Amino acid sequence: MTRIAVVGVGLIGGSIGLAARSRLNAHVAGYDPDPAARGAALARGAVVAAHDQLGSCLEGVQAAFVAAPVGVLPAVLDEVLDLAGPDCVVSDVGSTKRSVVGAHADQRYVGGHPLAGAETAGVAHARADLFDGATWYLTPHAATSGVLYERLHRLVAAFGAQPAAIDADSHDHLMASVSHLPHVLANVLVDQAANALSGAGERMPATGPSFRDATRVAGANGSIWTDIYLSNRDALIDRIDETVGRLSDVRAALAAGDAGAVARWNDGARANRQALLEAGLAGGAVHELKASVPNRPGVVADIALALGRAGINIVDMALSPSSDNSRGVVALWVRGDADAHRAQDLIASLDIAVSRT
Amino acid sequence: MTRIAVVGVGLIGGSIGLAARSRLNAHVAGYDPDPAARGAALARGAVVAAHDQLGSCLEGVQAAFVAAPVGVLPAVLDEVLDLAGPDCVVSDVGSTKRSVVGAHADQRYVGGHPLAGAETAGVAHARADLFDGATWYLTPHAATSGVLYERLHRLVAAFGAQPAAIDADSHDHLMASVSHLPHVLANVLVDQAANALSGAGERMPATGPSFRDATRVAGANGSIWTDIYLSNRDALIDRIDETVGRLSDVRAALAAGDAGAVARWNDGARANRQALLEAGLAGGAVHELKASVPNRPGVVADIALALGRAGINIVDMALSPSSDNSRGVVALWVRGDADAHRAQDLIASLDIAVSRT
Repeated sequence: MTRIAVVGVGLIGGSIGLAARSRLNAHVAGYDPDPAARGAALARGAVVAAHDQLGSCLEGVQAAFVAAPVGVLPAVLDEVLDLAGPDCVVSDVGSTKRSVVGAHADQRYVGGHPLAGAETAGVAHARADLFDGATWYLTPHAATSGVLYERLHRLVAAFGAQPAAIDADSHDHLMASVSHLPHVLANVLVDQAANALSGAGERMPATGPSFRDATRVAGANGSIWTDIYLSNRDALIDRIDETVGRLSDVRAALAAGDAGAVARWNDGARANRQALLEAGLAGGAVHELKASVPNRPGVVADIALALGRAGINIVDMALSPSSDNSRGVVALWVRGDADAHRAQDLIASLDIAVSRT
Repeated sequence: MTRIAVVGVGLIGGSIGLAARSRLNAHVAGYDPDPAARGAALARGAVVAAHDQLGSCLEGVQAAFVAAPVGVLPAVLDEVLDLAGPDCVVSDVGSTKRSVVGAHADQRYVGGHPLAGAETAGVAHARADLFDGATWYLTPHAATSGVLYERLHRLVAAFGAQPAAIDADSHDHLMASVSHLPHVLANVLVDQAANALSGAGERMPATGPSFRDATRVAGANGSIWTDIYLSNRDALIDRIDETVGRLSDVRAALAAGDAGAVARWNDGARANRQALLEAGLAGGAVHELKASVPNRPGVVADIALALGRAGINIVDMALSPSSDNSRGVVALWVRGDADAHRAQDLIASLDIAVSRT
């Protein structure tokens, strides 16, 4: 029986518990410092055992998911890695990865970040299907154990998510663009709209559905988001500067009344939006690739990261060690003929023998 | 029988036709320069008569809705006002109002702008319920006929929308904040995200649902939006400058690692978002106000604008002239005790006798 631990039973931790129980029939132990959260998690069925001690929660589990706020995550991960067994894969769900991955070179640790939900809404809103179809970034590092990475990949896929490997640095720069900057701009938009009619006796203006969509994330939970903004502030500042530069270009075209430049800029955005929407929607049959790899730390991480960088989704993976344990075979399933070809070329370029069956 | 004309039978014009037919059992005549659009509007049932001549389309109608692109709108409105009868209210659905309202001081003309749909998707996507619950801005001016304004208000309310009076200048400044700037920022966001992973062999990154929400309007139809951006460019440039200023404040707080300032900024955005969401959601019983007004142009517009500025929704309105036609009574229905009180005070402050029944 699969046994997992969830450290922090809010919306994400609770949903991991529910998914693990319903999809894998796993035994799920939960830890939370808050007695009310423990009680709610038990009542919701997200965990079958609720612990007030981290050590007892981690006893005998094959995987531990740390779902603690970004601000306290490094300290909680230290404790979990101290107390977890030698064969337990430890992951987390924090929205930024560089600082925490850099500080935890342990071979059992793989950073993680599911693009689903928010961290705070509480276990009452947890759902077994929260991760269905969602990208779940995994950030293995040079010391990551291949066996433990494979286990985590399979668990995350079993929860319904699409695991995608990415190095921690790229992850945080990417999130600055596709998550943290959009949050900043949503805040700016609501502040400007609220000030647009600020005369005495005037109320907020009526807004349309497109404004509400654009600002849905404005003012996201402050205790969480202050930590996220600050933990990724150098990357976020770069993106803010880029935004200011792009706004200055549009402003110049508007001030000049340059319809051609405005139209070209808008057409470019349409093309980019289309490309973003199509990302990851590639279909086709699933192909199996077999890579023969030396038994050294980091090799599975290297393969996963190379495919992740190329946007190739690993549908499933399996590791089988050779009898003398000196080498192993990594089987990878990739969807679509084109992606399978690209994956084969990429793995070969890492000097790893790879065949397609 | 109510007879209306729709000039331009795309998504909005077609939806007006469908709403007028299904909600009012109106006779709907449609004009479009494009024979294919005329055929599609007839097939969809959005109009019962399709004209290739503006004059015949406008014959005998009580209201004409001009749903032409912003770029050609002033010229089409000139033609419609030339050809429409003396008792026909003429409105439009353009996304910016100052230039077109400023150029058409005709007492039959009231600018309009429903916050629903997009102007381009074609009559095939037209729906009778497109305007249900949507704010429909009306921009009466000093010369607007009270009788014709009331007729337009009632038509728009019958289509399912909530009419809200606003002067053209405030409308365009408001739209710069709640529509045009969000479109600009959506374009900037997709361009930055598309460039975030631009290395050789790399694909677009996977993005989460919040990014897709924030960028749903990116690259909106270029032929329409180039006109919208340019027709409101001075207001939009002001908002872009404000955005750059606000981004520079956030950047400074991030660069200083000032968690308190970041948290306060984020909390402020949450409060502003809440206030925006609550705008227009006020409930309560409907109260009737009766205002006795001199029979002069603009007085109904003044009342509607004063209430619109205060965010007070006029649920319904009715005009009754005195027997000698020198004065009239405007009955207004307003929801909620507090709003009824405020409306009464506001109307009294215009030196108009008003009673509450």
